[in-house]
Parts: sequence; structure tokens; C-alpha cells
Amino acid sequence: MKAIHPVILCGGSGTRLWPLSRKAVPKPFLPLVGEETLFEQAVRRVAGDDRFAPPLVVAGAAHAELIALQLGDRPGARLVVEPAAKNTAPAVALAAALLPEDAIMLVCPSDHHIADSAAFRSAALAAAELARQDYLVAFGIAADRPETGYGYLERGEPLAGGYVLRRFVEKPDLDTAQAYLASGNFSWNGGIFAFRSGYLLAELAAYRPAMAQLVAAAVAGGRNEGLCFHPAAEPFAAIDGESIDYAVMENTARAAMVPASMGWSDIGNWAALADALADQADAAGNIVRRGTVDLAACRGVFAFTDGPRISAVGLEDVCIIVCGNEVLVTTREGAQGVGKLPGAVNQ
Amino acid sequence: MKAIHPVILCGGSGTRLWPLSRKAVPKPFLPLVGEETLFEQAVRRVAGDDRFAPPLVVAGAAHAELIALQLGDRPGARLVVEPAAKNTAPAVALAAALLPEDAIMLVCPSDHHIADSAAFRSAALAAAELARQDYLVAFGIAADRPETGYGYLERGEPLAGGYVLRRFVEKPDLDTAQAYLASGNFSWNGGIFAFRSGYLLAELAAYRPAMAQLVAAAVAGGRNEGLCFHPAAEPFAAIDGESIDYAVMENTARAAMVPASMGWSDIGNWAALADALADQADAAGNIVRRGTVDLAACRGVFAFTDGPRISAVGLEDVCIIVCGNEVLVTTREGAQGVGKLPGAVNQ
Repeated sequence: MKAIHPVILCGGSGTRLWPLSRKAVPKPFLPLVGEETLFEQAVRRVAGDDRFAPPLVVAGAAHAELIALQLGDRPGARLVVEPAAKNTAPAVALAAALLPEDAIMLVCPSDHHIADSAAFRSAALAAAELARQDYLVAFGIAADRPETGYGYLERGEPLAGGYVLRRFVEKPDLDTAQAYLASGNFSWNGGIFAFRSGYLLAELAAYRPAMAQLVAAAVAGGRNEGLCFHPAAEPFAAIDGESIDYAVMENTARAAMVPASMGWSDIGNWAALADALADQADAAGNIVRRGTVDLAACRGVFAFTDGPRISAVGLEDVCIIVCGNEVLVTTREGAQGVGKLPGAVNQ
Repeated sequence: MKAIHPVILCGGSGTRLWPLSRKAVPKPFLPLVGEETLFEQAVRRVAGDDRFAPPLVVAGAAHAELIALQLGDRPGARLVVEPAAKNTAPAVALAAALLPEDAIMLVCPSDHHIADSAAFRSAALAAAELARQDYLVAFGIAADRPETGYGYLERGEPLAGGYVLRRFVEKPDLDTAQAYLASGNFSWNGGIFAFRSGYLLAELAAYRPAMAQLVAAAVAGGRNEGLCFHPAAEPFAAIDGESIDYAVMENTARAAMVPASMGWSDIGNWAALADALADQADAAGNIVRRGTVDLAACRGVFAFTDGPRISAVGLEDVCIIVCGNEVLVTTREGAQGVGKLPGAVNQ
């Protein structure tokens, strides 16, 4: 059996994790959970295992240096430097075009956290098996709450190792999310996919012929430089950016899903990070991620500081982030709104 | 009628207003309400009015320079530099000993805010009139809530311009405070007093003869230096420090009170400061005292920063203070606990 090719996407800007996540060093390149960055974890998750080939990383030029640094010494690893940010469909298509047409690609965002790497690899093997049969396979993350911040996948008929994917659903309202959770037929769309590269490109050509053509031109006109591949900027710039979900997955008749219960979190905001670090909480549910923090009569407080001491009294379910001359204080409930703050918007 | 002699005490350390109030520049010397400091306001409250003599300020050596700076050009003003902090009774006694024995002293803490200066001066004139009749007169601040953080004064029989002071009550519990408020016979003890200096010293000699003797010795052995008077350190150091309330007011048979409704606040903590600045609140009750502050979905937030931007989401009734490499976040309810934080204690 041929190895699976991890394709690691580095697109997440993580503005809701401002002021820690910033344009220069965004979310994937920060050590949010544990000592490794989310990107390093994404790479290591598929490393040291013969069933996985060296990773193909797709990222913008602004982060090429960070990636080289955080990749370290990984023989065979490659970096595709996107000339512009065009969402996930062109990024995936670039990778597909650079791989042999019968390669099985495992598309992994690098701004998520996965607690259980073994469960991830099991799901990846099951997804790869379906991808070899020319299914376009999405990971269906086991939903454990009526989350309104994620898209959902509805499962259909069973397949070996997975299910037919009946439909994609956009972020639902709370009532709908509760109904999904109760039905047991829905899981979260974590943006993790497995494809046979030739089939992915064929489906893209069917549903988004212009994009497929421009990606092919960008690859044909591109150049290698060390470990990096630079697609031609001009055709790439002409692409209408779109997600792989919209461009292909919602159109194909061959969508499948594999269920994955692997401690997944998109670390979408400070409250989600606090949840992912719940095992580090003290008896009152407080989590100090870094720095000197004095808490009195606080419960469920998450505190991070890169320098100044934080002192707090009487707070409940509040996140306090002190970083680079910015001070952010948000309720856990309000954490989703951080990305719209002037500080996050006008970086 | 002879002028009233303001005696301005500068003892308040204001640790509950940490991290803004610090040992080097404590509460009285900070511009907490308006552009003037509390000390400057205390001085100006009795300035430019022939009924008041120039002030006699009593303070520690550590703050002599700040006081000289903030007093500005006030002909006749004097500063008594305490060799040690011994609470209010010795401070008041020093001032009394330096004034003529028939001088009427108006003892004013400098760490309080008084919104209505005219009401303050009216009460002062009424108190002075009783002090001339050898009453020891306390200001009874009109209570408008069942505050458990202040001492109370119970009024007795009416006198011209005031009342006999029936008793002092220590900080009550909430039930007691509510009963006091309902009865209408109790007001807050704001630490503002009027005495005839000779009578105050006679009463001190009666109830605290050792203290009276040591103060007399400190004055006899003291020296003038410009505007400053330095009491002799040795006898002063031997004094058992005590408040004027305990040493004299709770013992004398001649205690009186004058009612005062003058927008008084002791600015005892960040919540009290927010209350004192309520007229600056926006429609959601948020108050930004200084600096760049971005609030989203916040109500009743008080924010102060001396540099870094503050951003906040979803908070209610929370104070955020960023000052000198310290970040403090407290609920209004928890504000009273700030003084016990490690940062405030180990300055």
C-alpha cells in the first residue's frame, strides 16, 4: 500500500485569538496547547510512521520562514508558496497538481488541535481506503455539544469504514444544532479531507473549470527553489478564491465521510483554547497559561501574559490576555466577538 | 469671627486603588476625579475664602516634596512632617499644639472626594460654631445606602446647627447597616472634625495622657525649616498610634455632629471611584478614565490605562486597570479585596 501524502494548509489567521495571534505570527505558528505550535503538532501527527509520506505544506510567502524554522529537518518535506490567499480549493488543487495522480492526499488544516493522534491516524487510514475508491472523503468530527460555530456533515448509507456523505450544512442556529445533536446523524466538519489527487482534480475541472485551468497554468509556469515550489503569480492571482467545501464537496456525487472521535478543537477563540487546556485547570477551574498571575475569588478564569503581572478579583468565566502592549478581557461567552475588535481588525 | 484653620491629613495609603495608587505616589496625590488630585481639591476647597486660614498640612517625610509641588504658591501654608506614621490622633494633636489654643481647627482627610464644596463650607461653619462652644464636632455624612465599609455616627438631641453625638459605631454588618439607614438617625463618619485646639488637647490629656505628653515633647523639641515643622523624632516614635476617633471622640462627653450632604466619597476602591465618576458614563454605564479603550457588549465597565490599549468583550460591572506593568481586573463587588492582592501588599 502506498503512503498517504499529508497536505498541510496554513491559512488560518486566528483573529479571534488576537492579541496573541497576529498577522506576522498567526495562530498555526503559536504554541497554544503544549510546548509545540499547532503547525508543529500537525506535522508531527503524521511523522515517524511509514504509512505517511513527508508533508507537503501550502502557505503564503509571509510565513515561509516560520514554516522552514518550525518544520526543522524533515527530509522530503516540501513547501508550496501561494502567491496570494485564495481560500482552500486552490491550495488543495495546487498540492494535487504537484502529486502523482494516484497519490492519496490527506488535507489537514494546521490551526486545529487534536488530542488523540492515534485516533486521527486510524480515521486517516479509513479515509484513505475510501479515497482509493474515488470517494471524496471528509472527516466527521464527533459532536458533543450543539455548537453553532461549525458546519455539520449529515451521514447517509454506511460504507466500509465510513458513510456516504448526504449533505454539508452551514453553521446552524441553536435550535437546529440541538436537533442535529439529538438525531445522532450529524458530525462537525473539521476541514480534514482525503482525496485521490487525480480524482480531486477531475472533479474540480467538472465543477470549477476556470479554477482548475488557472491552477494548472500556475503549476506549469511555476518554479522550484530548494524545498519550495512557487506557482506562477499571474494565473493564480486571477482565481476566484473559494473553499474546497463549496467548490467541490457540495457538488460531487462521490462525497463520503469517516467518523472521527479524536479530541478535536479548532481553538477558534480564547474560550475554546481554555476548554482545550481544561486538564491544566486548578480546583476553581482557573487556568494560567503563562506569566505571573494572582487570582482571588475567581472561577473559570483563563489568564495569559507575556510580561506584566495579571491580578484579578471575583471574576467568573473570563479570559484575560496581556500581550505586546495590548490587554484583552473577554467573557468566555463573548470570546467569539474578539475578531471584530478594532485591535484585531486594524493590525 | 476668627478664621477656621484647615488641618489637612495626608495619611491614606489607598492600597485598594493599587496599581495606580502606590507607596511613592499614594491616593491623595493622584488626579482620581477631575484634573486635580484629591489633595489639591482638599486645599482648594478652603482656599480663596476669608473665613478659612491658610492650611496646615500633616504628612510623612516621604511625601513632603509632592505636597510642596501640589500646594503651589499658598502664602501662610505650613507642613508638619511626621517623623513616623502614628494614625490620626497624634497628627491632629501636633496640629493643635502648633495653633493658638483658641484656634478652630477643621480636620480634613485628603483622600476623600467632595462634590459640593459649598455644602462642605456651610457644614464647616456650623461645626466651627459648635467647636467654639467646646464641642468636639464630627461631620455626619448623609448615608444613602446600607454601606458596611464605613463607621456610623448616631445623632442625639438637637443643638444649634447640629446634634449631640450619641455614639460612634464601627463598620456594621449588612442587617445593622440597613436598620441604621431605615432609622434615619445614623450618618457616616467621614473623618472630618472641628475642634478648638486647646480643648482638643485638654481632652486628649484627659483620655490619653501619655500621648498628649509625647506630642508636647515632640513639638517642644521640634524645629522649623522654611514652611516645614519637624517634630522631634524620639518622643514621637514612642507614641502608641491611635485614631482620633478611639483616642478622644469615643470617650468625650462633648461630642457633637453636624449633618453634611455634600456628595462625599472616600473613593475607597475602584468601584467607589467608578461611582464618583458616574456622570462620565456612556449610555451603557461604561466609564473610560484614560487611554485607548475599545469596549464591545460591555455594561458598567470602568477602564483606566496609562499606556497599553484595553479591549473588552461582554463584561458587566468590571474594573480594568492597566498601570506601570501591572494589569488588574476586578468585579465591582470584588474591588474591596484589591488591597490584599500580592501586588498591592508587596509594593
